[in-house]
Amino acid sequence: MNERLETFCDGVFAIAITLLILEIKVPPVDSVHSVPDVWMHVGRLWPSFFALSLSFIIILISWIGHHNLLKAVDKTSSQFQLANGYFMFTIILMPFSTAFMAEYLDTPFAQPAIVFFCLNTLLHNTGWNLLHRSVVRPTSLLKDSKAMALQKKASRGARFGFFLYGAIALLALWLPYLALVISVLTWIYWLYLSISIEYYKKL
Amino acid sequence: MNERLETFCDGVFAIAITLLILEIKVPPVDSVHSVPDVWMHVGRLWPSFFALSLSFIIILISWIGHHNLLKAVDKTSSQFQLANGYFMFTIILMPFSTAFMAEYLDTPFAQPAIVFFCLNTLLHNTGWNLLHRSVVRPTSLLKDSKAMALQKKASRGARFGFFLYGAIALLALWLPYLALVISVLTWIYWLYLSISIEYYKKL
Amino acid sequence: MNERLETFCDGVFAIAITLLILEIKVPPVDSVHSVPDVWMHVGRLWPSFFALSLSFIIILISWIGHHNLLKAVDKTSSQFQLANGYFMFTIILMPFSTAFMAEYLDTPFAQPAIVFFCLNTLLHNTGWNLLHRSVVRPTSLLKDSKAMALQKKASRGARFGFFLYGAIALLALWLPYLALVISVLTWIYWLYLSISIEYYKKL
Amino acid sequence: MNERLETFCDGVFAIAITLLILEIKVPPVDSVHSVPDVWMHVGRLWPSFFALSLSFIIILISWIGHHNLLKAVDKTSSQFQLANGYFMFTIILMPFSTAFMAEYLDTPFAQPAIVFFCLNTLLHNTGWNLLHRSVVRPTSLLKDSKAMALQKKASRGARFGFFLYGAIALLALWLPYLALVISVLTWIYWLYLSISIEYYKKL
Repeated sequence: MNERLETFCDGVFAIAITLLILEIKVPPVDSVHSVPDVWMHVGRLWPSFFALSLSFIIILISWIGHHNLLKAVDKTSSQFQLANGYFMFTIILMPFSTAFMAEYLDTPFAQPAIVFFCLNTLLHNTGWNLLHRSVVRPTSLLKDSKAMALQKKASRGARFGFFLYGAIALLALWLPYLALVISVLTWIYWLYLSISIEYYKKL
Repeated sequence: MNERLETFCDGVFAIAITLLILEIKVPPVDSVHSVPDVWMHVGRLWPSFFALSLSFIIILISWIGHHNLLKAVDKTSSQFQLANGYFMFTIILMPFSTAFMAEYLDTPFAQPAIVFFCLNTLLHNTGWNLLHRSVVRPTSLLKDSKAMALQKKASRGARFGFFLYGAIALLALWLPYLALVISVLTWIYWLYLSISIEYYKKL
Repeated sequence: MNERLETFCDGVFAIAITLLILEIKVPPVDSVHSVPDVWMHVGRLWPSFFALSLSFIIILISWIGHHNLLKAVDKTSSQFQLANGYFMFTIILMPFSTAFMAEYLDTPFAQPAIVFFCLNTLLHNTGWNLLHRSVVRPTSLLKDSKAMALQKKASRGARFGFFLYGAIALLALWLPYLALVISVLTWIYWLYLSISIEYYKKL
Repeated sequence: MNERLETFCDGVFAIAITLLILEIKVPPVDSVHSVPDVWMHVGRLWPSFFALSLSFIIILISWIGHHNLLKAVDKTSSQFQLANGYFMFTIILMPFSTAFMAEYLDTPFAQPAIVFFCLNTLLHNTGWNLLHRSVVRPTSLLKDSKAMALQKKASRGARFGFFLYGAIALLALWLPYLALVISVLTWIYWLYLSISIEYYKKL
């Protein structure tokens, strides 16, 4: 039913996750004067590598979740198609948010970049919530009662995530670095959850 | 029959839709002097985000339509291969048209960018018409009589679109912003149609 | 047998063909002073659009040929894997050759760019020949006698192409524009052949 | 079981291998004054083409190995998912390491770039070792005893690679060019092995 949708989304996930690296720019050879100079310039790229790693984890978790949800679904609907489109849109924004954060993280102007990144994760969570809603309303697209039980559990996590990422985005306005640290911790936790509980594994 | 064609086209769709984000450039850190400055620079990116969203919707609708058409087809022909190649070519042009519009939309020189974008949608519509024509002539590639009825309905929409996007492209020469607003409205309407009527859903 | 190889190669084809558009740069808004100025700048991009179209056709034909060859093959070998790797490498070079030609085509320094492009097509043809050789030697990987007959016919075209593109590359050293025109004509001819004869269609 | 994982990873492999070409920049037309000048500028791109070829071979070998390993596996686990994620991350880093080496290889500041490239191959090898470990521990994900025997052989090569690439990375600190030559030789050897022994071919 949704096979070609999966192929298409897998393509978008794979491209978005790989494009992240294009935003890390090699220090131009004209700007360096010695070997230690090069190392220093590479060292200064740490915000880029940090942002790359964080976005990599976020997209990977999102892919695992999307994959699991689609395994539980065997029908389709307008609402589902629309929610999925919006969900993919928030993934496509990630390379920009990542590059923005990478450019500003160690400058005095980091706040807007961190807020923007947090807003992107909030938008992404909204997409995730809409997707979960669309598989149960107006009609259930889920395979069976087992899929329903697992989806219910996962959707509760999604709703909780909405308040969590809303709060983090607000916090980022005043305490951007603290908000970022909390965000990182939540993603490590989701990573742990998404590969260990494996909600839909036995479907 | 057309499985590998689908994989290839899905790849092109997925890449074109994701490359759109690469055209949105982070404001260089050297050009800002304060946090409000950064927000202002990000705010000035609105034409980029507008163009990105519009192109995202167009490519998504195109993918849904392509997907539905290929579900109704179970043969292939030279004409079909050629029309499909041209159709994909017009999709590949989208990231350029999008970047062009993003760069010029809020300048006094927006007209060429909007005309170019409208021409791209017109070319894309032409591809869509050729594709529809190629599945019925010289020989029908359609699965069954049900597919034929649905394809006939869809191809009428495609022909109507040709006159619509031709008119919009002409209008853009004199009243570019009005043309753009009308274009946006048509795409919202197509989006609504493509996910709600779901012509080929029951095939 | 070669399903995942096909997926991987389809990905590379799709990405290479879509990346071509990234090389066409929107004229920077600072460099224009009036609406006719913008049109003039866009008009000056014609070498980019020409190079894009040519490379699009080349990669499309290459994809069709690769697709048809793999449909005739149901085994694999080291030689085949290696030849296929080299074949894909020559596809990956295309976006660079295209960008090179786009940048130099209407300058007094077009010769190196055209020679380079012709060398790329020659390398690609070599890959095509190696691929054809690898499916018959040291052991045949072909499905049946029908596949053999069709492959034999196609491989004759590939060998002819080697002398043709070798001659074109040589000619480009002295008469680059003539060489380019001949190259374009050959590709239109291959396009016609690849979609009309459809060697392996009935396999 | 792991079909969609394969699709996703194939996408990442295909994109990473194709993005390599984007890092080779056409010499700007303003910087040249004659046809021999253009050739000279193109000639100076040799580190880019060398780095491209090397990275192409590395990603290709990695893809073949990944492909073979997944053919031997028919279950999944948290450890496997995590190891695979890390493995893909090291592939995504390749376009950056390649661009870095391309920019610095023929300058007096090549050492950091070569060390960085060697570290990337070391990280990649680590991912390969973790992946091999994850398919046997805590529980075996392998299909049958034949798959186990072949995986055991391959994992021995992976462990050997860890010491090899660790030593090469260390050597690169003092004798970067020698380290690079040795690294190239090892990759040619792996290429030979990966297409000739074809561990899992008969699975």
